[in-house]
Amino acid sequence: MKSPISDYLTEIITDARSATGGEVADYIPVLSEVDRELLGAALCTASGDLYSVGDDEHAFSIQSISKPFAYAVALEERGPEVVDARVGMEPSGEAFNDISLDEETGRPDNPMINVGAIAVTQLIGGRSASVDSRVGLLLDRFSALAGRQLSIDERVAESELAHSDYSMAMAYMLRDTGVVTDTAEHAVTSYIRQCAVLVTVRDLAVMAATLANGGIQPITGQRVFSQAVCRQVQAVMASAGMYNAAGRWMTTVGIPAKSGVAGGLLGTLPGRLGLATFSPPLDPQGNSVRGVKIFQRLSEDMGMHLMGAEPTGDTAVREVEVTDAATTIALQGPLDFNGGEAFLRAAVDCAVPSGTVVVDLARVGRVHDVGRRMILEGMRRLRGDGHRVMLRDPEGRLPGPDLGDGTRPETPDPVA
Amino acid sequence: MKSPISDYLTEIITDARSATGGEVADYIPVLSEVDRELLGAALCTASGDLYSVGDDEHAFSIQSISKPFAYAVALEERGPEVVDARVGMEPSGEAFNDISLDEETGRPDNPMINVGAIAVTQLIGGRSASVDSRVGLLLDRFSALAGRQLSIDERVAESELAHSDYSMAMAYMLRDTGVVTDTAEHAVTSYIRQCAVLVTVRDLAVMAATLANGGIQPITGQRVFSQAVCRQVQAVMASAGMYNAAGRWMTTVGIPAKSGVAGGLLGTLPGRLGLATFSPPLDPQGNSVRGVKIFQRLSEDMGMHLMGAEPTGDTAVREVEVTDAATTIALQGPLDFNGGEAFLRAAVDCAVPSGTVVVDLARVGRVHDVGRRMILEGMRRLRGDGHRVMLRDPEGRLPGPDLGDGTRPETPDPVA
Amino acid sequence: MKSPISDYLTEIITDARSATGGEVADYIPVLSEVDRELLGAALCTASGDLYSVGDDEHAFSIQSISKPFAYAVALEERGPEVVDARVGMEPSGEAFNDISLDEETGRPDNPMINVGAIAVTQLIGGRSASVDSRVGLLLDRFSALAGRQLSIDERVAESELAHSDYSMAMAYMLRDTGVVTDTAEHAVTSYIRQCAVLVTVRDLAVMAATLANGGIQPITGQRVFSQAVCRQVQAVMASAGMYNAAGRWMTTVGIPAKSGVAGGLLGTLPGRLGLATFSPPLDPQGNSVRGVKIFQRLSEDMGMHLMGAEPTGDTAVREVEVTDAATTIALQGPLDFNGGEAFLRAAVDCAVPSGTVVVDLARVGRVHDVGRRMILEGMRRLRGDGHRVMLRDPEGRLPGPDLGDGTRPETPDPVA
Amino acid sequence: MKSPISDYLTEIITDARSATGGEVADYIPVLSEVDRELLGAALCTASGDLYSVGDDEHAFSIQSISKPFAYAVALEERGPEVVDARVGMEPSGEAFNDISLDEETGRPDNPMINVGAIAVTQLIGGRSASVDSRVGLLLDRFSALAGRQLSIDERVAESELAHSDYSMAMAYMLRDTGVVTDTAEHAVTSYIRQCAVLVTVRDLAVMAATLANGGIQPITGQRVFSQAVCRQVQAVMASAGMYNAAGRWMTTVGIPAKSGVAGGLLGTLPGRLGLATFSPPLDPQGNSVRGVKIFQRLSEDMGMHLMGAEPTGDTAVREVEVTDAATTIALQGPLDFNGGEAFLRAAVDCAVPSGTVVVDLARVGRVHDVGRRMILEGMRRLRGDGHRVMLRDPEGRLPGPDLGDGTRPETPDPVA
Repeated sequence: MKSPISDYLTEIITDARSATGGEVADYIPVLSEVDRELLGAALCTASGDLYSVGDDEHAFSIQSISKPFAYAVALEERGPEVVDARVGMEPSGEAFNDISLDEETGRPDNPMINVGAIAVTQLIGGRSASVDSRVGLLLDRFSALAGRQLSIDERVAESELAHSDYSMAMAYMLRDTGVVTDTAEHAVTSYIRQCAVLVTVRDLAVMAATLANGGIQPITGQRVFSQAVCRQVQAVMASAGMYNAAGRWMTTVGIPAKSGVAGGLLGTLPGRLGLATFSPPLDPQGNSVRGVKIFQRLSEDMGMHLMGAEPTGDTAVREVEVTDAATTIALQGPLDFNGGEAFLRAAVDCAVPSGTVVVDLARVGRVHDVGRRMILEGMRRLRGDGHRVMLRDPEGRLPGPDLGDGTRPETPDPVA
Repeated sequence: MKSPISDYLTEIITDARSATGGEVADYIPVLSEVDRELLGAALCTASGDLYSVGDDEHAFSIQSISKPFAYAVALEERGPEVVDARVGMEPSGEAFNDISLDEETGRPDNPMINVGAIAVTQLIGGRSASVDSRVGLLLDRFSALAGRQLSIDERVAESELAHSDYSMAMAYMLRDTGVVTDTAEHAVTSYIRQCAVLVTVRDLAVMAATLANGGIQPITGQRVFSQAVCRQVQAVMASAGMYNAAGRWMTTVGIPAKSGVAGGLLGTLPGRLGLATFSPPLDPQGNSVRGVKIFQRLSEDMGMHLMGAEPTGDTAVREVEVTDAATTIALQGPLDFNGGEAFLRAAVDCAVPSGTVVVDLARVGRVHDVGRRMILEGMRRLRGDGHRVMLRDPEGRLPGPDLGDGTRPETPDPVA
Repeated sequence: MKSPISDYLTEIITDARSATGGEVADYIPVLSEVDRELLGAALCTASGDLYSVGDDEHAFSIQSISKPFAYAVALEERGPEVVDARVGMEPSGEAFNDISLDEETGRPDNPMINVGAIAVTQLIGGRSASVDSRVGLLLDRFSALAGRQLSIDERVAESELAHSDYSMAMAYMLRDTGVVTDTAEHAVTSYIRQCAVLVTVRDLAVMAATLANGGIQPITGQRVFSQAVCRQVQAVMASAGMYNAAGRWMTTVGIPAKSGVAGGLLGTLPGRLGLATFSPPLDPQGNSVRGVKIFQRLSEDMGMHLMGAEPTGDTAVREVEVTDAATTIALQGPLDFNGGEAFLRAAVDCAVPSGTVVVDLARVGRVHDVGRRMILEGMRRLRGDGHRVMLRDPEGRLPGPDLGDGTRPETPDPVA
Repeated sequence: MKSPISDYLTEIITDARSATGGEVADYIPVLSEVDRELLGAALCTASGDLYSVGDDEHAFSIQSISKPFAYAVALEERGPEVVDARVGMEPSGEAFNDISLDEETGRPDNPMINVGAIAVTQLIGGRSASVDSRVGLLLDRFSALAGRQLSIDERVAESELAHSDYSMAMAYMLRDTGVVTDTAEHAVTSYIRQCAVLVTVRDLAVMAATLANGGIQPITGQRVFSQAVCRQVQAVMASAGMYNAAGRWMTTVGIPAKSGVAGGLLGTLPGRLGLATFSPPLDPQGNSVRGVKIFQRLSEDMGMHLMGAEPTGDTAVREVEVTDAATTIALQGPLDFNGGEAFLRAAVDCAVPSGTVVVDLARVGRVHDVGRRMILEGMRRLRGDGHRVMLRDPEGRLPGPDLGDGTRPETPDPVA
C-alpha cells in the first residue's frame, strides 16, 4: 500500500495553484528571475517521517526563515540571559522592517524583525568572530538541522549586498546603542550570507520538525538544540513570526510560522510535526500566497491548529490488569504531566488494598522529568500504604528509581 | 493512597507566599478591603479531574478573566464574521486601557483590552437586548462553564459604576465608530456587571479546562462552545491576554492566560488542562504577583509550556498483532493527524501481502475528523491492494465507515 | 476718493471663486443645508479700520474659531499657571480629533484640538459654574471682542448635541484624568454652545484685530485681554491652529490662523491686523477651500507673512534738529526695543558735547515699557555726561520720568 | 555718552551666571574639554548695529545652528519645490534624533532634526558634488553671512566622525528612500564638517540679523538670501527649531531659535534683530541652560516676543500738511501693507476737494512692493477725483511711478 499522505499533499498543492495572485520579490534582480510557478510542500513528523511533493528538490534561499534558527543557535551558544539583554521578545506591532529600538534598553523588539535578526547573528561566535567564522558556525548548525551539508547562494548574497542600505542603517543603529560591536559592514554581510543559505522544502520541514521534537533531529537522531531553546524559539515565532499579522495568523491558522521573501514558508507544531512550502509569489505582507493557502488548508483539514490539540492524557494508562497476584498498571507513550496524572489516578483507584502493584513501562517511549517524578512519588505512596511495589522497565526509561529511602523497586519476573 | 497532586499544589502555593510584594487594587474601595493573604490554586484536567488547594472556596469578582469567555459567547452566538467586523485579533502593543481604535475600521485591536471587551459584550443578545438580558445570557453561559449557578457581586458592580469615566469614554468612542449602538451607559453597565461575576479558583479551573477540552465541560460533559470557538479564544489569549507583556509570557511561561484585577489568574493548555490561582496583590502590570510565580513554577516543574509538548503521535498504534489469520492494527487514544499518520505507516508496513487486516478501535476515545478520514482512506487502499478489511469498533467511534464504494467494512467475530 | 482696499478684497474673493472643490460639512444636517456659494472676507487693522466684502453680513456658527478666544478668556480669568496645569501648548502632530492625553500629566496636548478645547471651556467660571453661567461668561467676552451682542444658534447647538459621541468620549477621558470635574454632559454642552455662537466675517476680523492689537478692541477701545494673554494665544495658534499642517501653513502663509467647520477662517498679524473669511466648502483637512486661497493670496500679494516683517526700527527717530541752543531728538510711533535702540544711537551721536538735549515725544503714540526704560536711561547718561536734559511730552506718554536721582527732566518752552 | 545697551546685556549675562545647572556635552571628548564658565551674548539689529558682551570673541563649533542656514542655502540654490520634495516642514513631535521618515514620501519631517539636516546638506552643490565642494559652498555662504572668513575646527570634525554611528544609520535610511544618492560616508562627512564651522556669538548675531533683515547682511549690505527664503527658514525655526518643546518656547519666549550642542543659541525677530548666546552647559533637551535664561529675560524685559509686536501702521504717515496751495501727505519708514493702508486713509480724508495733493517720500526708507502698489493706486484715484497729483521722491524709492495711463506724477518744486 502506498501512503495517502503524499497524495493528500499533492491534492492540496494542486488546489493551491488556483491562487494566481501575488508578486515575486524583485528588490534584487536575482530573486525576480525565478519561475513563479514553482511549487513544493513537505511535512515531517516529530518521529521523523518525511513526506514531500511538487518541486521538493528545488533549492532556494532561506531568507528570513533563517531567523528562528539563528536565534536558536544564539540561545544555545550564549544562553538566554545574554541574548535577552540584546534582543527582546515582544511583537512589535509593526512590519518586518520596523527599525525602532526600545527607548530604555536600545534593544530591538524581537528577533523576527530584521533589526533583531541582525543583532542575533552578531551574538554567534562571540564579539571578535570574523564574518566567515560566524557564518561557518551558522552553516554547520543549519546543516545539522537539515541532515545534509547546506551551502550559500553567492549570487543572492552579492545581490543583497548591493541593495543593503536599509540593513546598513539598522546595523549602524545597533552599533549606536551598543548591541552590535563589530563593524556595520561585517554585521550586514554576516546576516545577508545567513539569509542566502540554499534549502529545499524537505530541508525546511526537517528543520522545523527538529524544533517540534524538542531539539532532536528526528531522522539523524542528533540533538541540535535543547528543549528549552526550542520552546523559546517556537514561542517567539508564534507571537512575532508573521510580523504585524501574527495575532490573526495564530487565530485562523494556529501554526507558529516564519516566511521568507524567496517564497519559503515554515511551520512547527510542538511535539507533532514540521511543515514547509515553497512558492515565490508574495502577498503585500511578504508571505507566499500559495504557501499561506496551503497552511490554511492543512490547519483546517488536518486539525493542525495549535489551540485545537486533542485531549491525550488518558492515553498514558495502557491497561490496568488486576489479577489475584498483582495489579499491573501498564503505561505507554511519552509521560508528561497529564500522563503522570492519569497514572496517579489509576494508582489511587487501585482495587487491592495492600497487594502487589506492578508499574509496567515496557511500552513507554520517553519519560518527561515531571512524569518520572510523578511515577516515583506514586510508587512511594503505594508502598507507604502497604503495597509491594515493582517496576518493569526493560528499556530503562526511569533512571534512578529511588523510592525515597535509598531502596529501588523490585523487578517482576519476566513473565509478560 | 492519596494523590500527590494536591500536595504538589500545596507546596507550590506555600512557596509562593515568599513573594510579599505587590499592591491590592484600590481604584474602588470594595476591592481594597480584601485580605491580601488569601491564596488559592486549582487545576482541572481535560478529563475532568479537579484538584484545588488553599482558599479554593473564596469567591472573588472575575473581572478581566471574563473577557475570553464573553468573547467565546459572542463568537458562538454571532459567528466569527460578525465578531471580526467589530473587534480585531492583533496584540495592541499597549496596556490594558489602550483606547486606540483602528483608523480604517474603527475596531478595537483585540477583545482582551477593555475597549475591545466592551464591544464584545454588546454583541451578546443582539442589538436591542436590555442590560438584564445581555448579562443574563452571559451569566447562564458562565454558570454552564463552572458547572454551578454563579451570581453577581452587587457591591463590586456598584462601586465600579461609580468609577467608570474611562469605560464611559471607551463606550462613547465605540458608539462614534458604530461598533456599539446601545447607549454608552447600557454598554458600560453590561460590561461592569459581567466583570462582577463571583467565582472561585475551582470555578475558573473548570472554565479553563472547558476551553482546553474543545468546549465540552469536562465534569458535566455539556458542550458549551464549539471546538472552533475554543481554538480562537485560546489563540487570542496567547497573543493578547497578558497585554503588552504577552510575548515574554508566552516565551517564559508558555500558557495562554488571562488575569483579573481582583487577583485571579487563569490559564489553559489546549487538550490538556485548565489552571487558576487567586491572590490579590498585583504587580505594576496588574497581574497577581503570587499567581505569576505559581504559573512560572508549574510551567517549569510540570513541563506545561505550550511549546514544549512531548511527541505523542506513535502512541496511537497500541499494537500490531500478526497471526496467520489476520494482521490486527489496534489503535487507541484520540486520533488526530499524527495518530492517523502512525496508523497509515503501520498499514503500509503490513507484513501480509494480501490477507485480512483488522482495524481495532476498541480502545479509542475519540476520533478527530481528520483521523476518521485517514483511517477510512487507509482501509480503502488496503482493500484496493487485495486485503480483506475488517473494522472492530464496538463504541461506534467511526461514524459512516463507507469504504468509498458504498460498502462498509466487515466486523470481526467478537473474539478479542 | 474711495479706498481701493475694499476693491482689492473684492478682486481677491472674486478670484477665489475659481476654486470649486471641497465639501460642505455634513456630519450634522443643519450645517449641510448652507448655500455653498456664500463668500465673504474682512480685514481690520490694529488701528481699527475695518474693510469687508461679499457676504459680510451673513452669520454662521463660529465653531473651532472659538477655541483661541475661549483659551484667552481662561488665561485671563484663571492665569497661565492654572491653565497650563490642565492643557499643554505643544502641537500634537495629529488631526483635530486626536484624543491622546499626556501620559504623565493627563493633559491634552494643546487647546486647539477638540479635547483641549473642552478642557479649556471647563476652566471658565470656576469648578462649580453651571452650563448657563460658563456659556454666559464666554458670550459676554465674545461680544466685547466683536463690539456687539452676539447670540447662539440653537438649531446648530441642538444638532451638535445629537451627534456628540466623540465629544462625550473626550469629556469622560478628561474626567478620568481629573482635568474636568463637572459632568461630561455639562462639559460637552458648554463646549457645543460655545461653538454655536453666531458671527459674521466682520465680527471675526475685529476679534482677530483685538488679539493683534494686544488685547484692546481697536474700534471700541475696550481692553478685553492683557498683552501677555494675546501673545500666548497667538503663539499657540501659530504652532497648533492648523492641526497637523501647522508647519506648512506657517511656512507658506505665515499668518497664525484658526478655521471652523462651518467655513470660517480667521488670522492675526501681531501688531498689524486681523483677517477673516467665510466660505463653506472644506478641504480634506477641514479648512475652507476658498478661505485658504484668499489667505495665500493676501500673504503673497500684501506681504503679510509673519516672518517677512519689514525692518521698522529706524522709524522711531523722526528728526534730530541741531541748533545753537539745543539738540532736539524728536521721536514718533510706538517705542519698542528697536525704537529705543534707535533713540540711544542718536543720543550717542549727539554732536554737541555738553549743551542742551531735548527729547521730544509729541508725536509718540505709545511707549512700550522697554522703550520707556531706554529713554530714561539715555537721558540719565546724557545728564551724567554734562548735558542739560529736557523732555517734551505734552501727552504724558512717559509716566514717572525720574532721572535716577529723584529729579525730573525740565520741560522746554512751548516753542515748537 | 556710552550706549546702555551693552550694559544691559552685561547685566543680563551676569544675572544668568546664577544658573549653575546643566552638563557640557561629552559624547565626543573634544567638546567636553571646554571651560563651562565661558559666557557670551550678542545682539544685532536689522539696521546693522551690533552689541556684544562677555566671551564674545570665543570661537566654538556651530553644530545644529548650522541647520537653518544650510536649509537657506539649499532653498536659494535649488528652489523650494526641489527642497520640499526631499524634506518636509512639519514639527515631528519628537526629539532631535528622531529617525522616522514619512511613510509615503520617505522624507524627513523637517530640516531641523538631524536626519532632515543630513538630507538638506546633500542638496547643496548638486548630486555629484564632492564633499569638499559641498562644504566649500556652505563655508562661503556662512562666511558671507558672518561678514568674515570662517573656518572648520578639524579636531571637532574628526571626533564627530569617530562617533557617527547614528548619523550613518540616518544616511543609509535616506539612501534607502532615495533622498540621498551620494554614499552614506560622504553625506555624513559633509554634514559633520558643516557642524564643525567655528563661530563667535558676534558671528551668529549678524547671521541671525541677516535672516531678520530679509536676507541682506545688515553690516556689509550684501544680499545673501532672498526675502522668500528668509521667511521660510524663520517659519521652520519657529515650528521645529526647539524640537519637541517648540510650542512652549514660542509661547513663553516667542523668538524663532536654534540651539547647538556646543552651547550656542541663536534667535531671530523678523524685521527687527538677531540674537546669539554661548554657554556650554546644556539642559536635558540639549539647550544651553544660561542661553535659555538669557533669551527668556530678553523676551520679557525687552518686549521681544514675536506675538507681542506693537502696532506700527500709523507711523507711516509722518504728517499731513494742508496749505492753500496743496495738501502734502508726508510718508516715512518702510511702507508695508499697514503703511499703505494708513496712506490711503489719509488720501480718502483729503480735505481739499479738488486741489493739489503732494505725496512726499523724502523720509521713506524702503517701499515694499505692496506699499508701492497702494501708493500708486491712491494717486491714480486722487487724480480720477480731479486732483492734481505730485510726487516728491528724491531718493527714487518708488520705481516706475506710472499713473495707469502712461503718465507719471509731476515733481513739486524743491521748496521743502
